[in-house]
Amino acid sequence: MATAIPIVPIHELAGHVGQSVTVRGWLYNRRSSKKLHFLEVRDGFGIVQCVVAEAEAGDELFARAGTLTQEDTLGVTGTVRAHPRRAGELELAVTGIEVLARTVAPYPISPKEHGTEFLMDHRHLWLRSRRQHAALRVRHTVVRAIRDFFDERDFTLIDAPIFTPSACEGTSTLFQTDFHGQPAYLSQSGQLYMEAAAAAFGKVYCFGPTFRAEKSKTRRHLAEFWMVEPEVAFADLDGAMDLAEDMLCSIVTRVLGERRSELATLERDIGRLDAVVKPFPRIGYDEAIRRLAEAREARRDPAAAPAPQWGQDLGAEDETVLSEGFDRPVMVHRYPAAVKAFYMKRDPLDPRLALGVDVLAPEGYGEIVGGGQREDDLGRLLESLREHGLPQQAFEWYLDLRRYGTFPHAGFGLGLERTVAWLCGLGHLRETVPFPRMLTRLGP
Amino acid sequence: MATAIPIVPIHELAGHVGQSVTVRGWLYNRRSSKKLHFLEVRDGFGIVQCVVAEAEAGDELFARAGTLTQEDTLGVTGTVRAHPRRAGELELAVTGIEVLARTVAPYPISPKEHGTEFLMDHRHLWLRSRRQHAALRVRHTVVRAIRDFFDERDFTLIDAPIFTPSACEGTSTLFQTDFHGQPAYLSQSGQLYMEAAAAAFGKVYCFGPTFRAEKSKTRRHLAEFWMVEPEVAFADLDGAMDLAEDMLCSIVTRVLGERRSELATLERDIGRLDAVVKPFPRIGYDEAIRRLAEAREARRDPAAAPAPQWGQDLGAEDETVLSEGFDRPVMVHRYPAAVKAFYMKRDPLDPRLALGVDVLAPEGYGEIVGGGQREDDLGRLLESLREHGLPQQAFEWYLDLRRYGTFPHAGFGLGLERTVAWLCGLGHLRETVPFPRMLTRLGP
Repeated sequence: MATAIPIVPIHELAGHVGQSVTVRGWLYNRRSSKKLHFLEVRDGFGIVQCVVAEAEAGDELFARAGTLTQEDTLGVTGTVRAHPRRAGELELAVTGIEVLARTVAPYPISPKEHGTEFLMDHRHLWLRSRRQHAALRVRHTVVRAIRDFFDERDFTLIDAPIFTPSACEGTSTLFQTDFHGQPAYLSQSGQLYMEAAAAAFGKVYCFGPTFRAEKSKTRRHLAEFWMVEPEVAFADLDGAMDLAEDMLCSIVTRVLGERRSELATLERDIGRLDAVVKPFPRIGYDEAIRRLAEAREARRDPAAAPAPQWGQDLGAEDETVLSEGFDRPVMVHRYPAAVKAFYMKRDPLDPRLALGVDVLAPEGYGEIVGGGQREDDLGRLLESLREHGLPQQAFEWYLDLRRYGTFPHAGFGLGLERTVAWLCGLGHLRETVPFPRMLTRLGP
Repeated sequence: MATAIPIVPIHELAGHVGQSVTVRGWLYNRRSSKKLHFLEVRDGFGIVQCVVAEAEAGDELFARAGTLTQEDTLGVTGTVRAHPRRAGELELAVTGIEVLARTVAPYPISPKEHGTEFLMDHRHLWLRSRRQHAALRVRHTVVRAIRDFFDERDFTLIDAPIFTPSACEGTSTLFQTDFHGQPAYLSQSGQLYMEAAAAAFGKVYCFGPTFRAEKSKTRRHLAEFWMVEPEVAFADLDGAMDLAEDMLCSIVTRVLGERRSELATLERDIGRLDAVVKPFPRIGYDEAIRRLAEAREARRDPAAAPAPQWGQDLGAEDETVLSEGFDRPVMVHRYPAAVKAFYMKRDPLDPRLALGVDVLAPEGYGEIVGGGQREDDLGRLLESLREHGLPQQAFEWYLDLRRYGTFPHAGFGLGLERTVAWLCGLGHLRETVPFPRMLTRLGP
C-alpha cells in the first residue's frame, strides 16, 4: 500500500468521505454474492462495511476477498462513501486488502447460538461480539460519569485497602488469604475507611473492587464487583439521599448522551431511562411494608410467598414488587435497626429505626445503592457493637473517629455492575464485567 | 447562630471577603496570648486562621476559645478578611463559636515528633495531618490525570479481574485464597487480559489494585498497590515508549498546574519537575551496561557492588545510578530476553534481546513503568512458554489471541504509588497510599 494513505479508526471515517483510507482490524462477517463481497470489518472503535466489487477490484483481489474468514486480521484500503441505504452510515469501496494474519482454525464463536457456559469459557473472544462490546462501553461511561460527578463536587478520591485485618462480621461471606503469617480478608466495603477519611478531607469516595464469598448463584451476584462509596462530613440521611439521587441522574444523563448507539445494539428501551429524573420517590419502611401487603393481597395467589412482616428485611422478590410501582428508582428509608448494620445511626424520632436508605432500581433490577447516616456517638456505637455481638478490639481505630472530633456524617455504596445491568437492560450481571467471577466461574 | 449565615468551605472563602460566614470543621492548632487566640481550623478543603480577640469577642467567648483542644469539632462564625501578613491568605475575625463535639481524650498525634510505627498505627488519624493530606491530594490528581489521558485518547476502560485461576509464574509472590473449593490467586497484573481486550476494543486500559506477596521490606515495596496498564493494538515498542512519555508528561503538567500548594507543603523542589518534558532519553540495555561500568569505575570505591555484566538484570541500585545521569525519566529498552517475561517479543534485529522497556524515574525513584511489545506469533510464543518452563494448559485462552486474528500490540504498566512518591519527593511508598499494606503492616 502507498504510505500516503492514512490509517483511520472507523469512528473517524466521517472526516474522510471521498478519500482513500486504510482501516486496520478484523473481519467480523462476510456475505458474498457472485460479483460482490460485503466485508464487515471491526477495529475496536466501530464496524464498517467494506464492499469488494468484482468489476472494480479485479479478479485477484476479488478472489482473495472470497477466502477471508471471521477474525482474519486485515488492512483494508478503499474510498470512504455514504452507505447506499443506511442514512448517516459510511462504507468503504475497497481497492486493496492486506491480509495481516489468518486465523489458524475456524473461529469458535459463530453467528449461530451458543450456550452461556461455552461463551463464558471463551470470554476472551466473546468480548469481540457486538453486544458484549456495547455493554462494556456503557460500563466505561458509567465509571467515567461517577468519577466526574464526585471530582466536580470537590470529593477527594481515597482508595480503600483490599486487605483488611479482621473478619468483623463473621467470615462466611469473606475471602481469606494468608498475609505473611496473619489471616487477612478481602474487603467487602471501604466504608469504615471512608469515614476516617471524611474527617480528614470532608468529602471523599473510594471506587474499587470488593469481594463477597456468598454461595449465591443468581443473576444478581458476583464474587468480585466494583463499588463506589462516597462519605460526607456533616451530612445527614437526607443529604445522602440527595447525593445518591443527583449521582444517579447524572449517570443516566451521561449514558443517554454518549451511548445511544450501544443502547440500540442492546435493544434497550430508551423511554425507561428517559423517565429517570428528579425527584425520586422516597418512602419509609413502614410504607414499603404496607405496599407489599397490598400487592400480595391484589395478587390473590395462594401459592405466592407471604408479604414481609414489620421488622423483617426485604428480599429480592420484595424489592422487585416495590420497584414495579414506580417509573424511576425508589428510595426506601428508615428500616428497623435490628436488620441493619451496627454502624447505622438510630432515628431520634423512633429509635426502633435506623437512618438508612436503600435505592431500588426500576424494572426489578434490585438494590443498587445502600447507605445512610452513621452513628457518631461513642457510647451508642459501643452499645451497638455489644448488641451485634462484635469484638470491640477490632474496632478501636474506628471508635477513635468518635473519640477525636466526632461529627455527623453519611454516605452510601453503589454497585457498579447492577447499575450497568439496569441501564443496559441485561438479564444477568455476568455481561456487565469484562471477566466475571462467580460461584462457578474463575476463568479465563 | 443565625440561619442566614452561610456555611462556607475554606477553599471558597475568597468569594466571601467582608462577609460573615461559618466554617465547620476541626481545630488543627491553637496559639494563645493574653488578649488573642489564634485558632487554625481545618475542614478537609483547607486550613484557615480564626482570630478571637478579647476586646471584640467578649469575655465568655474568649474564655471558651481558650479551652479548645486539637480535633474538637467546631462551627466558627466570623468575618472573612485578608490575613495581615501573609499575602493572598484570608483569616476569620471570630464573632461566635459553636462547639459541636469535644475530644474525649488528648489527641494522640501532637506537633511533637512521633515514630513511624506509632503514626502508621494511627493512620486513620494521621491522614488529618498537613503533609499526609497533601500527598493524598496529589495522588488523586495523578489518578485523574491518568484516566483523563486515556479517556481523551479513545481508550476503553476494561477492569481486569483480581481473582485469577492459575499461578502461571510460580506462587512465591502470589497471595492465594480458596475460591469456592479451587485455589485462586490475587492478580499481579492485568496485562494478559488487556491483550485480549485490545483485540476487541483496539486501545484499552485497566487501573486497579494489584498484589505482590514479596518478602521485601524496602521503601519501594507495597503488598497492595495500584497499577494502570494500557494496551494498544497495532502498536510496537516505539509506540509504547511514545505513549508512556506522553502520559508521564501529562501527569507532571497536571500536578504542577493543580497541586502547587500541596507540593509546597511537601517541600518538593518544583524545579526538578519542571525539567520533565519531552523527549525523554532512550538508551539501549547495551548502553545502560556501559554507563553502569563507567559509573562503577568513576567511584573508585573497592567496597561498592560490581556493575552488572551483559545478560544480567538491573537492580534497584543500578537504576538509581543510571537515573542520576538524567534530569528526566530515562527509558531503557531491549533487555536480554532471558531476564524478561515469556510474553515479550524478540527483537528481529537481535534475537538475544526482548522488545521491552523500563522507564526509570529521576532522583533514584526507580522503575515506574515496565512494558513493551508482545509476542504475536503463535509458534514463538509456544516456544517461549517451553523455555520458561510454563504449563501450556494455563495459557490456552491467551494462545487463542494468536490463533484467531493475531496482531502486533504493545503496552505497559505504571505503578501509581512509585509515581506519586517521585512527584511528591517522598522517601517511602507508605505515605502515597491512604491505608498502606506492607510485609509487616495489615492495619488499621
